[in-house]
Amino acid sequence: MLDTAVQPLYLGVDGGGTKCRACVANAQGHILGIGNAGAANAMQGLEQTQSSIVLSAKRALEAAGLPEHTLGQLVVGVGLAGVNLPGVYGAMMEWVHPFASLYLTTDLHIAGFGAHGQESGAVIITGTGSCGYVNVDGEEVMLGGHGFPLGDKGSGAWMGLEAVKAVLLACDRLGPETQLTEAVEDRLQARGVALAECLSRGSSRDYAQLAPLVFAAANSADAVAGKIVREGADYISALAIKLLECNPPRLSILGGLAQPLRQWLKPSVVEQLAEPLAAPEVGAVFFAQQQQLAARKPVV
Amino acid sequence: MLDTAVQPLYLGVDGGGTKCRACVANAQGHILGIGNAGAANAMQGLEQTQSSIVLSAKRALEAAGLPEHTLGQLVVGVGLAGVNLPGVYGAMMEWVHPFASLYLTTDLHIAGFGAHGQESGAVIITGTGSCGYVNVDGEEVMLGGHGFPLGDKGSGAWMGLEAVKAVLLACDRLGPETQLTEAVEDRLQARGVALAECLSRGSSRDYAQLAPLVFAAANSADAVAGKIVREGADYISALAIKLLECNPPRLSILGGLAQPLRQWLKPSVVEQLAEPLAAPEVGAVFFAQQQQLAARKPVV
Repeated sequence: MLDTAVQPLYLGVDGGGTKCRACVANAQGHILGIGNAGAANAMQGLEQTQSSIVLSAKRALEAAGLPEHTLGQLVVGVGLAGVNLPGVYGAMMEWVHPFASLYLTTDLHIAGFGAHGQESGAVIITGTGSCGYVNVDGEEVMLGGHGFPLGDKGSGAWMGLEAVKAVLLACDRLGPETQLTEAVEDRLQARGVALAECLSRGSSRDYAQLAPLVFAAANSADAVAGKIVREGADYISALAIKLLECNPPRLSILGGLAQPLRQWLKPSVVEQLAEPLAAPEVGAVFFAQQQQLAARKPVV
Repeated sequence: MLDTAVQPLYLGVDGGGTKCRACVANAQGHILGIGNAGAANAMQGLEQTQSSIVLSAKRALEAAGLPEHTLGQLVVGVGLAGVNLPGVYGAMMEWVHPFASLYLTTDLHIAGFGAHGQESGAVIITGTGSCGYVNVDGEEVMLGGHGFPLGDKGSGAWMGLEAVKAVLLACDRLGPETQLTEAVEDRLQARGVALAECLSRGSSRDYAQLAPLVFAAANSADAVAGKIVREGADYISALAIKLLECNPPRLSILGGLAQPLRQWLKPSVVEQLAEPLAAPEVGAVFFAQQQQLAARKPVV
């Protein structure tokens, strides 16, 4: 049993639009347990975000074999989608949380911290959404991440939307035929106007679930799907080139589309990609440790 | 004063996502008064649609100098967006309405009836959304009209969305500079991430309000805006060519974008366009008269 009375315990949390993932770590950064919970996008819902954070924390403690009351001893680092907006950041900071202390930053900041084991570096995240981030000597630049449907090019939601648009055009014989028609109609069990109706209030997550169909069709030489994937990949390559202009020590691509997109990226980009060293929630632990150290440092 | 006891009175109603327009007419089809009310898209809200229909009817009666209790004498033809979906049609038909009788059809059907003064013909509507419709000898074909953001290419909402996407790419220097940046930022009083935030839950109507800026920039030789307008116009031209394959006696283009789009359409399409003879709500009067006649006809 850990002597939690003398050894500080850290919790790293990565909160996104689909899920929240937390890990408990000791002072040496060793992961003791991991816990998952539902959505934690602070822009989309503050209360749900907070309850997802607490739930994932409890599950991480349970996985680590630690009692629930340890919650009050945790030094917590949280990276959340949406807190780059000042209003959202302010609202989250007013939370009367159950932890010893809580340090808040963006999901991009902790993703970079985890991927590179240090604050400096660049990351591109492409999953349900897409965005780019670079931190060089504490100077941050964020690109993209404008959300669905007006941004997030090259993301799963973007690919799914482009696929449905192409299917509907083909269905009216106003666009080229594509394998996507059968694939999308089979998946959603709807066609034509019914397909449009079934997706009329679709979320980014609903569209992102179609992205694997787009890659499958593109890899089977379907011209329509190939054009979508190529356009998305070209955007991600351009994002990478833009981030590399800041001379970050490393660049990593994270998220569910990182692997399938890789073969479609520009070779000059691929050869500069570094494997992420650790997951974003681990980056959140590093961030918590860094912030705690800074808070303790006497002001000279 | 009209002898309403012996002369039948008709009401034609054109209900859309932004507004509802009604006109009272006599048996000869002469318009006696017109009334407007708010949104009446049956797919988006049944109760609001019904109260918009009644309100526009009352205002049309008032404009005609007729007492409100005349409502119960009206033979009503209603064309509504969304009732091409069987579920929506069924729900609307269960309405215990205050009229003498009510005949329901799509907004496209009455638009064609009005534009051509008869049932046969083709129409393209491009305003907030876009769609195409052809009726030849009672056989109907509907194209497009899949809604925002997955369809409605060449519509105001589509143009607005494409414009915002281009502005956000330019803002990240991942897309070409465009006059649209200043125009859109000025209109919405926001830029970059704030622009994305302000539109994150934007409706098709919010985006469609940006369409005039896209035409203005395109007409000032802005390459980005020009590409958007050309792509939208090419889709509308293709839609027209598809509808003309059914050999309709006439083809008209209606809606707020009909006029600004005209110069961007293919010349072969423009030369086949016929001026709409009457507005959709007048078409709804013709439809009511036709349906009433059919209902009275003895079954042989």
